[in-house]
Amino acid sequence: MIRFDFTNITSESVDSSRLMSQELDSLDIGQLNKFFGMGAQAGLGFFELLDQDISSVEAAAKKAANFSNFILLGIGGSALGPRSILEALSPLHNNFNKPRFFIYDNIDPMTLQKILDAADLKHSIVNVVTKSGSTAETLASFMIIWRKLKELGLNPQEHLVITTDPEKGSLRKIAREHNIMSLSVPPSVGGRFSVLSPVGLLLAGAASFNVKALLEGARQMHAACIQRDLYKNPAYLFAGSLYLMKEKFGRSVTVLVPYADRLKSFSEWFCQLWGESLGKQGTGLSPYPSVGTTDQHSQLQLWMEGPNDKVVVFIALDDYGTDIKIPDDFSDIEGLGYLAGHSLAELIKTEQEASEIALTKNGRPSITIHMPKVDELHMGQLFHFFEAATAAAGFLFGINPFDQPGVEEGKNLTYGIMGKKGFEDRAAEFSAYRKKKRLVI
Amino acid sequence: MIRFDFTNITSESVDSSRLMSQELDSLDIGQLNKFFGMGAQAGLGFFELLDQDISSVEAAAKKAANFSNFILLGIGGSALGPRSILEALSPLHNNFNKPRFFIYDNIDPMTLQKILDAADLKHSIVNVVTKSGSTAETLASFMIIWRKLKELGLNPQEHLVITTDPEKGSLRKIAREHNIMSLSVPPSVGGRFSVLSPVGLLLAGAASFNVKALLEGARQMHAACIQRDLYKNPAYLFAGSLYLMKEKFGRSVTVLVPYADRLKSFSEWFCQLWGESLGKQGTGLSPYPSVGTTDQHSQLQLWMEGPNDKVVVFIALDDYGTDIKIPDDFSDIEGLGYLAGHSLAELIKTEQEASEIALTKNGRPSITIHMPKVDELHMGQLFHFFEAATAAAGFLFGINPFDQPGVEEGKNLTYGIMGKKGFEDRAAEFSAYRKKKRLVI
Repeated sequence: MIRFDFTNITSESVDSSRLMSQELDSLDIGQLNKFFGMGAQAGLGFFELLDQDISSVEAAAKKAANFSNFILLGIGGSALGPRSILEALSPLHNNFNKPRFFIYDNIDPMTLQKILDAADLKHSIVNVVTKSGSTAETLASFMIIWRKLKELGLNPQEHLVITTDPEKGSLRKIAREHNIMSLSVPPSVGGRFSVLSPVGLLLAGAASFNVKALLEGARQMHAACIQRDLYKNPAYLFAGSLYLMKEKFGRSVTVLVPYADRLKSFSEWFCQLWGESLGKQGTGLSPYPSVGTTDQHSQLQLWMEGPNDKVVVFIALDDYGTDIKIPDDFSDIEGLGYLAGHSLAELIKTEQEASEIALTKNGRPSITIHMPKVDELHMGQLFHFFEAATAAAGFLFGINPFDQPGVEEGKNLTYGIMGKKGFEDRAAEFSAYRKKKRLVI
Repeated sequence: MIRFDFTNITSESVDSSRLMSQELDSLDIGQLNKFFGMGAQAGLGFFELLDQDISSVEAAAKKAANFSNFILLGIGGSALGPRSILEALSPLHNNFNKPRFFIYDNIDPMTLQKILDAADLKHSIVNVVTKSGSTAETLASFMIIWRKLKELGLNPQEHLVITTDPEKGSLRKIAREHNIMSLSVPPSVGGRFSVLSPVGLLLAGAASFNVKALLEGARQMHAACIQRDLYKNPAYLFAGSLYLMKEKFGRSVTVLVPYADRLKSFSEWFCQLWGESLGKQGTGLSPYPSVGTTDQHSQLQLWMEGPNDKVVVFIALDDYGTDIKIPDDFSDIEGLGYLAGHSLAELIKTEQEASEIALTKNGRPSITIHMPKVDELHMGQLFHFFEAATAAAGFLFGINPFDQPGVEEGKNLTYGIMGKKGFEDRAAEFSAYRKKKRLVI
């Protein structure tokens, strides 16, 4: 089971932290317990994924696994979750395995062209993922792929799986009219909380990962995250610590730094979850996606001596799944001998702990998450933990962690220029903007 | 030539910005001119890369280009620069081209094992890159590769190129003793400013990119960045704006969001440059690595409505190098018709501008960098611009942008545990730390 070490957030060496212990003690979690107790009714629809029926996912995955290529069209939560599962459980996957996965999560024409050059559609299954069924970016690429399939004389029914709302949206309509295989994202589950829904599970199944173990891990973590005692509930203690660090001590940046390359995408998944859920009403916490030891040579300087506005969250790995000894061929060269005889896993674990100690000595707070190994069970635990902690943090900040009102204006302006009916005023705003006197070099 | 639009940092709709114009006007840039005028003497060693002799890089690149695989061992600036060149100029490179590139910038044993499984050393050239010649992570992987070459009966002289200091460090010593082909990083050029030194240029040459055009672009940008008038010098105006946004208006986070997948690694390169150069003495600016439109579905909510502590820097692309039309097969489906007939490039450019307008309307400042296209010339411009701007910002903050004193303590603690002579006290600190009473769930 994943363990959570909060020592360095209450440690005496961190200036704010003696106060932090008191603040934590006086946190009123009665209302938080009530909120979590309401489950889906309070927006916590992802709780209900724990006991979902996965038979339709398994059927679709079985079909998908027979193709050489699996192309996923989706953006935001529809791409970050699946990608983080893939990279965590099968590093450098495409070098060794079929199907190869291509995740197109943008509308950059060069990327789509390159994917189409690399993956012959004849041997590809295309998974179109949009919870709402009307995401402009995803539908644009879907329409392009649909036309290409037709042009190649391929039957869309053979090459498409649609993952979307069970009833609503353009994509559901298309799935029905053209009898396309489809999976449903429960309406109560927000896009950034959907990794353990068919959004992430289809890719997991197609890659032959153990889908049941992912959900089993999430269930195990759920049991911990509904404990009513702050000091027994990792989601509450994590959310409470970071909430207080912002509100009482002005630390508004949450850095996530797993010490494993294969969790880099997980770090990006976390950034959407944390940033988009909590960043509203002028408050919230800003995430930073990192990876260790790499970012010791990029960001550690800033965390140590830059603005004291960060809390660093380490993910330390117990078992790397493999290890390599450092040989002694150069022990005679000054300053190199000390490495020989140790192993890479030893070195990376030492560096993680050293960074933790160095930050603490410098008065900078951190939290360490100890992960036994990166497998389905522990990834399930990790995903569910961060989702529960995000919901709890939203509650503490007094904001709704499940909406994203701030992205509407940009969409409306785009509709204006693209000529969508009803958005003519936004087109006019574009013209006015372009005519503005500009300061350009 | 790349153009820089500062309109939205002085726009009346951004609360602080009427004041911003005055603040910029009163910025004393006389000392900054003096600093830039001193060049390498003042730490600006990267100015001298503009006119370097590239014959040895070309020779090494010619040799490297004949291998099936190019494995780079390096961390921080030794990896971020080369990777950002590769991904910018050859998206999804390994799917189509030889040599395939594998960049190992960590000590995660799983990643190295996977790279060795994917790339047969017999057909690989290994470029070991460390400016100091004594980076623990890089030397650990170098010693492993050296032993593997020996075990396979391969001659290290055939398979290695070392990029390091011309005189100092363990790696230079090894290169000399074993007669390994080597390239020099000028001692006056810091690791994070080394992308246009042999650190980045060897990979560029091996991938058959136009090395001369990279340097030509940098020279063109340099001419702009030594203008003595604030409003003609993009590096000064960029640095001055972001410095003032922090010091006068409390905005300490710089988000870089290129609207092109192939610039995602560039965004990470920027984060090292900006974070490690400026984050010291309790001040500086915290970067965030982003990519558009993808992060409109991940981070835009936070930028629009979260803590008002950010300046968003867009990179807008004029020419995507290719384009794809959105077909009209589903024009009858409600809410989809508006996309048909437009192209992906049209859509992505519109979304970039829409995000810019939406932020401005919401009182959130931004800067837009207009890049004609992603090629060697413009990448050279982009790299040199950010390096010059970072140096200028460091000067304005009154800190040394070329050192990184904050990373020493973590290194020393690692030496302690690994048994390096002279660091026994740090080993004792580890033991004490581990015995501490912990708050763990």
